[in-house]
Amino acid sequence: MLSPTSVPRIVIVGAGFGGLAAASELGSLRAEVTVIDRRNHHLFQPLLYQVATAALSPADIAAPIRSVLRDQSNTRVLLDEVVGVDRAARKVRTRSGTELDYDLLIVAAGSEYNYFGHNDWRLFAPALKSIEDAQAIRRNVLLAYERAEMEPDAEARERLLTFVLVGAGPTGVELAGALAELARAALVRDFRRIDPKHTRIVLVEAGPRILAEFPERLSAFAHRALERMGIEILVGSPIEQIEASGVVVNGRRIQAATVIWCAGVKAVPVAQWLDLRPAKSGKIEVGPDLSLPADENVFVIGDAAFCRGHDGKTLPGLGAVAKQQGEYVGRLIAGRLRGETTNKPFHYNDQGTLATIGRHSAIANLPWIKLTGTPAWLLWGVVHVYFLIGFRNRAAVFLNWVWAWLTYARGARLIIGEQQTNGWHSIVPQQHEKAVTHE
Amino acid sequence: MLSPTSVPRIVIVGAGFGGLAAASELGSLRAEVTVIDRRNHHLFQPLLYQVATAALSPADIAAPIRSVLRDQSNTRVLLDEVVGVDRAARKVRTRSGTELDYDLLIVAAGSEYNYFGHNDWRLFAPALKSIEDAQAIRRNVLLAYERAEMEPDAEARERLLTFVLVGAGPTGVELAGALAELARAALVRDFRRIDPKHTRIVLVEAGPRILAEFPERLSAFAHRALERMGIEILVGSPIEQIEASGVVVNGRRIQAATVIWCAGVKAVPVAQWLDLRPAKSGKIEVGPDLSLPADENVFVIGDAAFCRGHDGKTLPGLGAVAKQQGEYVGRLIAGRLRGETTNKPFHYNDQGTLATIGRHSAIANLPWIKLTGTPAWLLWGVVHVYFLIGFRNRAAVFLNWVWAWLTYARGARLIIGEQQTNGWHSIVPQQHEKAVTHE
Repeated sequence: MLSPTSVPRIVIVGAGFGGLAAASELGSLRAEVTVIDRRNHHLFQPLLYQVATAALSPADIAAPIRSVLRDQSNTRVLLDEVVGVDRAARKVRTRSGTELDYDLLIVAAGSEYNYFGHNDWRLFAPALKSIEDAQAIRRNVLLAYERAEMEPDAEARERLLTFVLVGAGPTGVELAGALAELARAALVRDFRRIDPKHTRIVLVEAGPRILAEFPERLSAFAHRALERMGIEILVGSPIEQIEASGVVVNGRRIQAATVIWCAGVKAVPVAQWLDLRPAKSGKIEVGPDLSLPADENVFVIGDAAFCRGHDGKTLPGLGAVAKQQGEYVGRLIAGRLRGETTNKPFHYNDQGTLATIGRHSAIANLPWIKLTGTPAWLLWGVVHVYFLIGFRNRAAVFLNWVWAWLTYARGARLIIGEQQTNGWHSIVPQQHEKAVTHE
Repeated sequence: MLSPTSVPRIVIVGAGFGGLAAASELGSLRAEVTVIDRRNHHLFQPLLYQVATAALSPADIAAPIRSVLRDQSNTRVLLDEVVGVDRAARKVRTRSGTELDYDLLIVAAGSEYNYFGHNDWRLFAPALKSIEDAQAIRRNVLLAYERAEMEPDAEARERLLTFVLVGAGPTGVELAGALAELARAALVRDFRRIDPKHTRIVLVEAGPRILAEFPERLSAFAHRALERMGIEILVGSPIEQIEASGVVVNGRRIQAATVIWCAGVKAVPVAQWLDLRPAKSGKIEVGPDLSLPADENVFVIGDAAFCRGHDGKTLPGLGAVAKQQGEYVGRLIAGRLRGETTNKPFHYNDQGTLATIGRHSAIANLPWIKLTGTPAWLLWGVVHVYFLIGFRNRAAVFLNWVWAWLTYARGARLIIGEQQTNGWHSIVPQQHEKAVTHE
């Protein structure tokens, strides 16, 4: 594969859980490792909903990729975006026009939200994938209350205080719980004309139950817990229409100023880069060692990989899967470079999944036990803080949480940025055409 | 002035240091108090440069206005922008089309940066006034390093690593120090091709010395300390031209990708709202009780007020002045409503001024002593943390500082947002016309 005298060039596309895990396995090799990401930061996505609901600051859940990798002298970081791969010439092409030669390529480029053919809905129902998304959602949620406070018309007020979440996977459920907390606790004494307690939160799910990836008992527990928090849940209810004024579901119109899309992901256009036919949801089918069946020098891991577990089921798009795949590929490459020829296939070690439901409840589906309520919530807190990259983040997140928990306050409740970004319709009242300027 | 049976309506424009101080004096009155601000947050402006240089998160230095005032049941908060005042009809008109009746009006609308007739410079040299400004500057400073790391041409690299600060008041000096720290400590091991230590920081000042508002001895100390940090200082050097490629000063061109404007402020268009002729820098001349000579029901305080101290000198645009003026006007109004007729004029109690110079040095000009170096820096830290509104902010800022000080790390080093906002020229390399999208 490689001439034994050359220093192998390994390119990793994406610095999410998978890419960083692979990079860190390769850190002490005699190799030239390049990590490309279009962001300068690794994002701890499982907590993004807390930024969107003003509990955490962006810096609490993100770390500069350069800092994470600064002690690996064989590794450089490029802030750039991949636009294509020439597998014959073994080159990665980027947005800036750079061409990077590789001997081995690890594609860990992640996923994006899937509107299932309704890309026009994106305008009215943004998804939660990046820090900008989270800040835009935070801004628009907080502005909805501000506008409602000024709104004389009762019906318009009701529309402003209605939030619809499309999709009841972990993101939809955790957002619903956090929005309910924000409304019923953090904001409760801040307004004079409206009562944020009257916020209506509707969780819409096409499938027969929420949190379908959890066992039925746990998802039933979560369902009851959310309803006790005042959240309306519509299951078996595919969304029919999304527009500026709200949504249509089960043939009925729900007037809502804020609609957030939490309904499924697809891989970024990796198949197009690699010139391959995608499997389900744009993912790339990989072999047992996570390399392409047609090209042993290209690996695909994480959300972009279509990969079956030992039970034959497709592996879910979880950070834990991506991380283990990154570690596996990193070790495999290290072994190959040492001349080893072990071909032990990738095996996902499922350590369980967790989802929170508001202030002190959660569900946990662990291999050895299923937990609900406070014990699951405590476990969730410990696990998430522990896995955050970097001590500082851990301390700041912990401090924020303890403080928020004690006071019900929201530390990051700032409305920042332009009124119209990210495809949101403006919800700030403006008499004149001219936009409100900052200066 | 008021019929004794009516509940007086007091409108406060602006929730900066002055507006909030006035509001809090009025909190227990039998009155209808309305605070209008175009932001939902009070901003602790003296620390904004720390957000711009990635040491603090926006939420660390800002607090939602509603939270600050939530316990004052006679006070409501409006997120809106004033566009005019009808003094005859005693109405405030806002951007959203609302007309607010007032019996007493307190204008505490603050200041904005003054480009002294060169508004075209704003495009290339943004100022630091809002959280968005700070985030844009942070993004562009960090992107300059990213781009330099990718840049093959030595001259272009040098331009990317040159930062010019126009104006050597406290903001310019503190930014210069913080940028030098960022370059020489926080980023130092993060890059492979460039050495951030070679960052060139140029502080350009039209007047004869930096920090002109401090005594000469202190400003000379700061000058030497900044030079020891490697910062180039050009005094007596009015800026002649600012364009995309850099600046012209003393007839010489300095190639610089990042130019930041720190050179003087003017009042927001308060004179226009009030239909009055402005005094210097757009400010409104007020009487000894801070009301308009022509209208005793309208007060102007803070940066928007032109006001002389007991020594005849104009009061500076400091948070401390605005705060004391707000307290004074609040108490004056409370007295008037109780039927008192004291006419004690406003007196500014100067408790001193401080400016930091990087990692553990500062200057302090106090009424009873002048401090330099570490003692001044310690005083500065204590004072600033103490004055931050809200305990949580205090704790988070303290934690961030201790951590940053121990590790030289920067917690908030995220590049967030669109590539082109706030008038910055794009510094991300793009081969294609199409902008890099987030999704």
